[in-house]
Amino acid sequence: MFIWLGKRLIVYTSVMTSDQRIAGIELGGTKVICGIATAAGEVLQRTRIPTRGPEETLLDIRNWLQPRLDVASGLGIASFGPIHVDPASPRYGHIGATPKTAWRDFDLLRAIREWTTLPSALDTDVNAAALAEIRWGAAHGHDNVVYVTVGTGIGGGIVANGRAVHGLMHPEIGHMKPRRLPDDDFDGMCPFHGDCFEGLAAGPAIRARWGKPLNELPADHPAFAMEADYLGQLAVNLLLTASPTKLIFGGGVMNTTELLPMIRNAAARHLNDYLDLTDPAGEPRELIVTPGLESNAGLLGAVALAIDAS
Amino acid sequence: MFIWLGKRLIVYTSVMTSDQRIAGIELGGTKVICGIATAAGEVLQRTRIPTRGPEETLLDIRNWLQPRLDVASGLGIASFGPIHVDPASPRYGHIGATPKTAWRDFDLLRAIREWTTLPSALDTDVNAAALAEIRWGAAHGHDNVVYVTVGTGIGGGIVANGRAVHGLMHPEIGHMKPRRLPDDDFDGMCPFHGDCFEGLAAGPAIRARWGKPLNELPADHPAFAMEADYLGQLAVNLLLTASPTKLIFGGGVMNTTELLPMIRNAAARHLNDYLDLTDPAGEPRELIVTPGLESNAGLLGAVALAIDAS
Repeated sequence: MFIWLGKRLIVYTSVMTSDQRIAGIELGGTKVICGIATAAGEVLQRTRIPTRGPEETLLDIRNWLQPRLDVASGLGIASFGPIHVDPASPRYGHIGATPKTAWRDFDLLRAIREWTTLPSALDTDVNAAALAEIRWGAAHGHDNVVYVTVGTGIGGGIVANGRAVHGLMHPEIGHMKPRRLPDDDFDGMCPFHGDCFEGLAAGPAIRARWGKPLNELPADHPAFAMEADYLGQLAVNLLLTASPTKLIFGGGVMNTTELLPMIRNAAARHLNDYLDLTDPAGEPRELIVTPGLESNAGLLGAVALAIDAS
Repeated sequence: MFIWLGKRLIVYTSVMTSDQRIAGIELGGTKVICGIATAAGEVLQRTRIPTRGPEETLLDIRNWLQPRLDVASGLGIASFGPIHVDPASPRYGHIGATPKTAWRDFDLLRAIREWTTLPSALDTDVNAAALAEIRWGAAHGHDNVVYVTVGTGIGGGIVANGRAVHGLMHPEIGHMKPRRLPDDDFDGMCPFHGDCFEGLAAGPAIRARWGKPLNELPADHPAFAMEADYLGQLAVNLLLTASPTKLIFGGGVMNTTELLPMIRNAAARHLNDYLDLTDPAGEPRELIVTPGLESNAGLLGAVALAIDAS
């Protein structure tokens, strides 16, 4: 809970103390991370469960987590999307139109509430990651942050004025369409849109186009300039809508470290000096960055959700 | 001021009563509207001043408004952008990189504070319009709203969780780039980006391309389908980032009433069923709409800013 006292002052009134225990579930497309952390963001225990169909995956989550919940004062769930996050909707807590057909319309929240009455908070994995990066990571102290993940898909979370953005659904930024590069005739792989950002620049598109992932190609391979251009265009669309002061690119594709500076250059080229990219002191901003939280980012995102909801 | 009490409950604690008087200034690219309204949104007096250079325009504003300020308890300023809206920035209240060169870097807020000590609130005209539409117009009761204006330029305001989005700057949505239509070889008119949305689909681009504004062309003219496709793409980019439950298209170009249903169709075609466009009761949403506040929308936006800041 927080109390808003005017244009710039927010007083956090969380009832949690930093040594309280929070349970977190990061439900990803290929793996689930479950854990127990302190409210200060220290991970005490964690496990990794492969994502299969909903029933068997949820059973594994329950078997690991339920015996550990008696020390926890809250549970956060950070899920792949699309997922219905409006508590006023009858579909609250349901997975939406995902290509993972076994999960489509699955009532995730209900399946978890069958075995725990802990206060639970739910959001997308990417909104949760943005909140965790604000609390403990690369966006510490920022109010307006976008977290993009580039992996098996392209997704994004948006925090505006310190709070995750929902609304009609939640941000689904990977399905915007970039301007195609003239020498790129790849059809794209998105089942809904073909050549949207996700269809052109997520990990599977890189493999389909070049036969290898980016980290197995030399840094002067044309795959890099193409990937950087598309992600630079995505960065521009996000800077011109959500107006973040930190734009974080994470996910497996970003583990290729040569990519970040190329994305920055591509974004600057597409912006063409339209935005002032200096900070109030006139220094260049560290605007487009990689995550500060490494392997625990998703789990800590789930923990951050539970803390914010307390 | 409001107090945030949990996931869905906001308690407004405005100190204003509905018969209090608020002064508003809507600073537009071609005209300024100044007025006095009640805190309930009733416009009591207004005037229209042509926008010229900053000194002569501000002098006219002062001459009309200053004698009327003794009844007012607040002043809202809704300005064309880009304008620096972060109170922590040394450039707060300054106009940014506008094509209107006489206004570039002009310290608007200081020029107004030279002749009034009333509490003043400043935001972009489009953020202000979104807040006014939420308070009194087409988005009444909604928390997540985007207001787009399509006129001499294309601009937009975003409200997330009930509050205007700022950050690095403020939303500058008109400068994203659409996917070009295959039969469109027009270069575009944006001095920064050529064929961004603003460069391709704002009023001046329509005139340059077809020789006439849209409202002087028959509804089966190809200009309509092209305009609707570009604005439909813009709608999709906004739905996939800000995730609004109301997306309002206003501005002079939207006075051509045939355009709105064509934009809705184009947006649905580009989304290709990716988003669920029904409401929680399963009914189709009135998602993309025109403004509810007509000629007073901008002025009431300025008034809404002053009320929100009180």
